[in-house]
Amino acid sequence: MKTGILLFAHGSRTREWAAPFERIGERIAARRSDTAVVCAYLELMSPDFHSAVDGLVEQGVARITVAPLFLASGSHVQHDLPRLVEEAIERHPQLRIRVLPVIGEAEALLDAIAAWVADQSFEG
Amino acid sequence: MKTGILLFAHGSRTREWAAPFERIGERIAARRSDTAVVCAYLELMSPDFHSAVDGLVEQGVARITVAPLFLASGSHVQHDLPRLVEEAIERHPQLRIRVLPVIGEAEALLDAIAAWVADQSFEG
Repeated sequence: MKTGILLFAHGSRTREWAAPFERIGERIAARRSDTAVVCAYLELMSPDFHSAVDGLVEQGVARITVAPLFLASGSHVQHDLPRLVEEAIERHPQLRIRVLPVIGEAEALLDAIAAWVADQSFEG
Repeated sequence: MKTGILLFAHGSRTREWAAPFERIGERIAARRSDTAVVCAYLELMSPDFHSAVDGLVEQGVARITVAPLFLASGSHVQHDLPRLVEEAIERHPQLRIRVLPVIGEAEALLDAIAAWVADQSFEG
């Protein structure tokens, strides 16, 4: 069964803002050649969530993992994203969608961020 | 010379939103017992940037590394943060401040995020 990964980020008026998300997507695609990987944005950038989901469904994807690329869980992740997922299921009833935790709820990523900041900082 | 690390995040109306930043701070403090580590927020949460800097200066900190805990660099990082740093130097002319890149500009962190998402996703 074909699977997809949708990287969901906030969006910005600054065009270069999207670069890290696109680069994360490229790295995931390199690790998961069996999986279609796309970015989607809540606002100010395209594609939006539904366009990205539609694109995956057109490719035959039946299961999508949504990774909210947010450091912490605020109203976008707690309210906007569940609504979008619900609408997507209404639009594509056969689709299975799994939503991952935000980055800041992954212990391994908290450790990686902490180690990186500690290593880059002024020596004591 | 006493050093500090200031973790600069956006802020949110959702109180639990701050938890990942506080946890990153605890992990850095565990690695860098020589360094004072504080969180500060652009809006909606306290302390704000200047209060956090003042607190570090009162502890005798002379060099502060500012880590912008943002995934990507938009107007908050490109405009708001440089203005805050400039104001802090005006308030404390003896202070040295270094600003780190955002998380999404650190190759090691892009890799860590990509690996984590790939591992958590639906199998192909």
